[in-house]
Amino acid sequence: MFSKTKKRFHLLAFFMALLLLMSFKIFAEDGYRLWLRYDVIANADKLKEYKKSIKEIHFPGDSPTLRVARSELTPGLTGLLGSPVRYVDKVSGSGALVIGTPQSSKVIASLGLDDKLKSLGREGYLIQNIKIEGKKYIVISANTDVGILYGVFNFLKVLQTNKNLDNLEISESPKIEYRLLNHWDNLDRTVERGYAGFSLWDWHKLPDYLDPRYKDYARANASIGINGTVLTNVNSNALILTPMYLEKIAALADVFRPYGIRVYLTARFSAPIQIGGLSTADPLDPQVKKWWKDKINEIYEYIPDFGGFLVKANSEGQPGPQNYNRSHADGANLLADALSQHGGIVMWRAFVYTYDVNEDRAEQAYNEFVPLDGKFRDNVLIQAKNGPIDFQPREPFHPLFGAMKKTPVMMEFQITQEYLGCATHLVYLATLYKECLDSDTYAKGKGSTVAKVLDGSLFKYANTGFAGVSNIGTDRNWTGHHFGQANWYCFGRLGWNHKLSAEKIAEEWIRMTFSNDKDVVKTLKKIMMASREIAVSYMTPLGLHHIMAEGHHYGPGPWVAVSGRPDWTSVYYHQADSKGIGFERTTKGSDALSQYYLEVKEKFSNLETCPDEYLLWFHHLDWDYEMKSGRTLWEELCYKYYHGADSAKWTADKFSTLSGKIDEERFEHVSAFLKIQAEEAIWWRNSCLLYFQSYSKKPIPVKYEKPSGTLEYYKSLRFPYAPGIRPSW
Amino acid sequence: MFSKTKKRFHLLAFFMALLLLMSFKIFAEDGYRLWLRYDVIANADKLKEYKKSIKEIHFPGDSPTLRVARSELTPGLTGLLGSPVRYVDKVSGSGALVIGTPQSSKVIASLGLDDKLKSLGREGYLIQNIKIEGKKYIVISANTDVGILYGVFNFLKVLQTNKNLDNLEISESPKIEYRLLNHWDNLDRTVERGYAGFSLWDWHKLPDYLDPRYKDYARANASIGINGTVLTNVNSNALILTPMYLEKIAALADVFRPYGIRVYLTARFSAPIQIGGLSTADPLDPQVKKWWKDKINEIYEYIPDFGGFLVKANSEGQPGPQNYNRSHADGANLLADALSQHGGIVMWRAFVYTYDVNEDRAEQAYNEFVPLDGKFRDNVLIQAKNGPIDFQPREPFHPLFGAMKKTPVMMEFQITQEYLGCATHLVYLATLYKECLDSDTYAKGKGSTVAKVLDGSLFKYANTGFAGVSNIGTDRNWTGHHFGQANWYCFGRLGWNHKLSAEKIAEEWIRMTFSNDKDVVKTLKKIMMASREIAVSYMTPLGLHHIMAEGHHYGPGPWVAVSGRPDWTSVYYHQADSKGIGFERTTKGSDALSQYYLEVKEKFSNLETCPDEYLLWFHHLDWDYEMKSGRTLWEELCYKYYHGADSAKWTADKFSTLSGKIDEERFEHVSAFLKIQAEEAIWWRNSCLLYFQSYSKKPIPVKYEKPSGTLEYYKSLRFPYAPGIRPSW
Repeated sequence: MFSKTKKRFHLLAFFMALLLLMSFKIFAEDGYRLWLRYDVIANADKLKEYKKSIKEIHFPGDSPTLRVARSELTPGLTGLLGSPVRYVDKVSGSGALVIGTPQSSKVIASLGLDDKLKSLGREGYLIQNIKIEGKKYIVISANTDVGILYGVFNFLKVLQTNKNLDNLEISESPKIEYRLLNHWDNLDRTVERGYAGFSLWDWHKLPDYLDPRYKDYARANASIGINGTVLTNVNSNALILTPMYLEKIAALADVFRPYGIRVYLTARFSAPIQIGGLSTADPLDPQVKKWWKDKINEIYEYIPDFGGFLVKANSEGQPGPQNYNRSHADGANLLADALSQHGGIVMWRAFVYTYDVNEDRAEQAYNEFVPLDGKFRDNVLIQAKNGPIDFQPREPFHPLFGAMKKTPVMMEFQITQEYLGCATHLVYLATLYKECLDSDTYAKGKGSTVAKVLDGSLFKYANTGFAGVSNIGTDRNWTGHHFGQANWYCFGRLGWNHKLSAEKIAEEWIRMTFSNDKDVVKTLKKIMMASREIAVSYMTPLGLHHIMAEGHHYGPGPWVAVSGRPDWTSVYYHQADSKGIGFERTTKGSDALSQYYLEVKEKFSNLETCPDEYLLWFHHLDWDYEMKSGRTLWEELCYKYYHGADSAKWTADKFSTLSGKIDEERFEHVSAFLKIQAEEAIWWRNSCLLYFQSYSKKPIPVKYEKPSGTLEYYKSLRFPYAPGIRPSW
Repeated sequence: MFSKTKKRFHLLAFFMALLLLMSFKIFAEDGYRLWLRYDVIANADKLKEYKKSIKEIHFPGDSPTLRVARSELTPGLTGLLGSPVRYVDKVSGSGALVIGTPQSSKVIASLGLDDKLKSLGREGYLIQNIKIEGKKYIVISANTDVGILYGVFNFLKVLQTNKNLDNLEISESPKIEYRLLNHWDNLDRTVERGYAGFSLWDWHKLPDYLDPRYKDYARANASIGINGTVLTNVNSNALILTPMYLEKIAALADVFRPYGIRVYLTARFSAPIQIGGLSTADPLDPQVKKWWKDKINEIYEYIPDFGGFLVKANSEGQPGPQNYNRSHADGANLLADALSQHGGIVMWRAFVYTYDVNEDRAEQAYNEFVPLDGKFRDNVLIQAKNGPIDFQPREPFHPLFGAMKKTPVMMEFQITQEYLGCATHLVYLATLYKECLDSDTYAKGKGSTVAKVLDGSLFKYANTGFAGVSNIGTDRNWTGHHFGQANWYCFGRLGWNHKLSAEKIAEEWIRMTFSNDKDVVKTLKKIMMASREIAVSYMTPLGLHHIMAEGHHYGPGPWVAVSGRPDWTSVYYHQADSKGIGFERTTKGSDALSQYYLEVKEKFSNLETCPDEYLLWFHHLDWDYEMKSGRTLWEELCYKYYHGADSAKWTADKFSTLSGKIDEERFEHVSAFLKIQAEEAIWWRNSCLLYFQSYSKKPIPVKYEKPSGTLEYYKSLRFPYAPGIRPSW
């Protein structure tokens, strides 16, 4: 017989073995958990400190939102601290976590936070250390339940990122009001420009079956402050407005509501004809007005907090008010009038270009919308892409930012990587977003940044908005590439606070998603911060743009010369000829530069001051043009493409040093994708240089390795079922 | 300070708490693991017994297949027993698990198993207790490595299902040679008749990125004896035969190979024109012959063990030899000749019906193929669906079974539930499969079952085959419905051994997938065994068939009267009129019954002996026809529909008794689907009865609840994006 001690020891050994065994399998590291990972704190000192600071939770009050806040906090703390923290009705001493609004919690109401809270508005929150009678508490307070939810997520992040709990003085509120994902999801579950599987919305089984993933989607969005979601493609289908679908949408809205997320839809402008049985969709027609009013009232019966509409009209074949010789304002106001009594908004896209206009496509949105400034209802926002063309790896900021003083312009960023390697390229987009947000429009003199336009501080917009075209799909890790998660994350974070640096956001995300290990943080941050510039270099250096393959946009296609319209080709944009390359947008060319404020126009017009990054966006230059580097333009082009492809390889090598420092499953997944990226970077480089060489007639400097394929080979490649596009298009 | 003991105790408590905490999260119960779950044995006595019997493993030898067998066995045993079992080079005593072929293991070679093994062929295996010098071993032996893999899976199943290890005497070998899944997967990742998300094959990222799911797919298939997979839709795309795709397929084949799974493709008959640049695809044209020979040689360069082709030709718009006035034999032999030197086969589908034939569609396959019996090359199999129409909830067996004596006929079952409620209905298909397999063709007198045709014992076929149209997709649980997994499972098990009962297979699956708890096993078995008859009752009772909605086939559509061709309508099949209902297939009608052997023909022709289940398949009868039950036909129809819908509700109620006995995640998922099923059963019942009532002019007996909707309402329902079909079709 064993002695008692021995027995215990055996029992202990058994449990330890079992634990060891299980610890390998606690979660499949498939990325499903995103940055909401609550594994036990690895740093033993931190863990000890945290356990000491969080001994009990006082979190009274009941509402759907407070319940989901608790349903996040409970497993979150249990996981991070390795053991549950008890909830108490009464605070018993130091180490209590006290949470609530002045309404939900008497303790909070007694703390005299009213002044501090007042300035934080509906969604803001405070996280502070408070000492009362010698006892130390951590307090999360807000004006509303959703503020509490945001505070809880942030508090969990404080632990996830191993911050100190001693000097908490977090005071947060969003700078922009409407922070939305745009899903370009079709009703058949294909996703236009989607590279992460198919649409999350399983329409067929809704409303009866609610995939648990809907809730996890809401959790992820709420954790980064996203408060709205446009469920359907801007290339829209009127069926979504029929009762069959409204019932399904209502079921989704019910899941999202406690998370502070409102549902929005895309409205097909011709819906009165297609599902309403009318003969016209003329926005000034009384029957059409009545139809929309009735339809919108019906929608609010299903979804009382319906957010409103996103509309793509008179663009790329979508119907719109111009079909009836009415203006975009007429179209937007039609919907806005019917939405206003319910508190709904219209987001009217500025991405329009018509068939019969000969002007530079970069100029068209400005020309359409600036004359209409002030003619829109108060609940209309104009949603403009970050640049004047179409989500290219690099674009200058859109001239509409700063040009509309009375009608708010909101941002449309692309999170999905339509032009940035689809699912398999690691491109961290916060640097792209920041580049645009920090751009100075000079609308009211120096410092009139795009960000200040967006947050309403420049023109005192009544409404402000920030939209991102989602990169989310049914792939287990949500975004196809594990690092695509960082783009969803940084989009949300910048929508909340555009002053955050790309680097700070990257670090947060890395710590939450991969590890707090110093080496991992440092290496991944380096990779992420360099990534977008690398992609620009191997795809579209020096201001080149829109030279990708046609249709699916996968891979290079600088040779695309024939398409549905000239401005869908590549040659329209790069303008390469025997003399040189680039799109002349100064007064010598399309004069698109005149749409910017003088300071911007002059900077970009002048070859001395125009940054290399935008050179060929604004100028057509000789192959022998001497660059600031001392190289000729042709040599610089070669240098950029080779440097870009080499850097893609560098990324893969750098990442490989993390073997063993991050879990094998994600390590292998990312490594495989980085290998693809490095190969495709060479494909881009070779294709573009060989093609441009056919104009420049100059050799690729001998110090570079020779392209392995011929131009004919690269031109012959076909990808008939590349994702993100329906083959029938 | 703590005493040492006390300290240990605290440590123990800590580990226990941690363990408790983690045990809730070890695996998300999302169904991803299928039946390959290796959680620790719940029954403490069993666990003790198993640990005693399995103390060490002697499993020498190295090959890709032996490696994957070990990679299954190691986590399998570790999980099931709760602690790792060590591998030993030398057996040390009782409790050793000894595994190998006479080639891979000297111990096995010394056991004198040669005679026993000889009869088991390439894929068979033995699992036995063997006593040597008073020591007890468990021995898994086989002639080949893949036999070992199958044996390992079966041994794990023995533990998973809590069988005794004392009297192991398992001797297994498959009765049918080619056991294949057919994927109707398109290159754009849509799946025709797929209800579990989208195609597993992520063509865009292949061959560079190998989704770990490919391996899990192979594991699942190998565990039930499936040894081949046709990757692409029978409505085929010639692009799959181009180098770009062959490279991708080769990567998949490399993943599958160690698991004993060969890759097959669908061949588009017009490929020589579409991708070969020829002007004809005439099977007798020398250029066409050469093209296929070259193409097939090319395929084998990529995939040395390529399995062969599945072909749908001259059916539903697919091209075929008849386009050139050649026979199906000419077409099949063209491919067979080119494949034969590599050991490949052709599976030529019997599901053909031409546009210009007026005969009963049920007769067409027989009429096409029986005259060709014996005219096919040795490596051709004719693949016939289980019944003469198209995977209906109930069909009599296909008259081709038993009619082809020289050319082997193989089975095509449908696993995906195209006509059985798509993803959301629980219909266990083993009873359907068995009903067909056990049907007596009387081809060589009594006992000439379909199964004996298939396994070659009746006509001494050189090749035998068993195919199932897959229900697998990207859904996390693989099959949409958790119980869809049972249909994948039972298909594989019956392909290996058609003598197994549906009940035994259900029990195996339940124990492996849900629980060994008696109540769970009993309840789920009851639900599963009743499920198919329930579905028949609320969809197509008494031999009705093909009365579903058009196109997507989701829901009822008995009113479908106009379509691309008469035999795509419902009225063609139910023939309802003011007098009665049913398709007359005796000599009074189409005489399709004459395609069966005399005994079958007489049984079905005679109203006295024709089972109610097939009544309206073979007979048109008056509404007042008196049934064996004493009810009139109309009353019986009402009875069946109401009983079916009530039974669907019963299923949901019965399942709800398992709350707390199976994990919450799957319980909630299945419960939600059962609720949908019960509602859709009423939809079917009401639609069909109200529609047929418009002919019978008879009341629905008052004892039944009145249909809640009107016939017009049910007819008005539209499901434009129902899954499993591309809207553009």
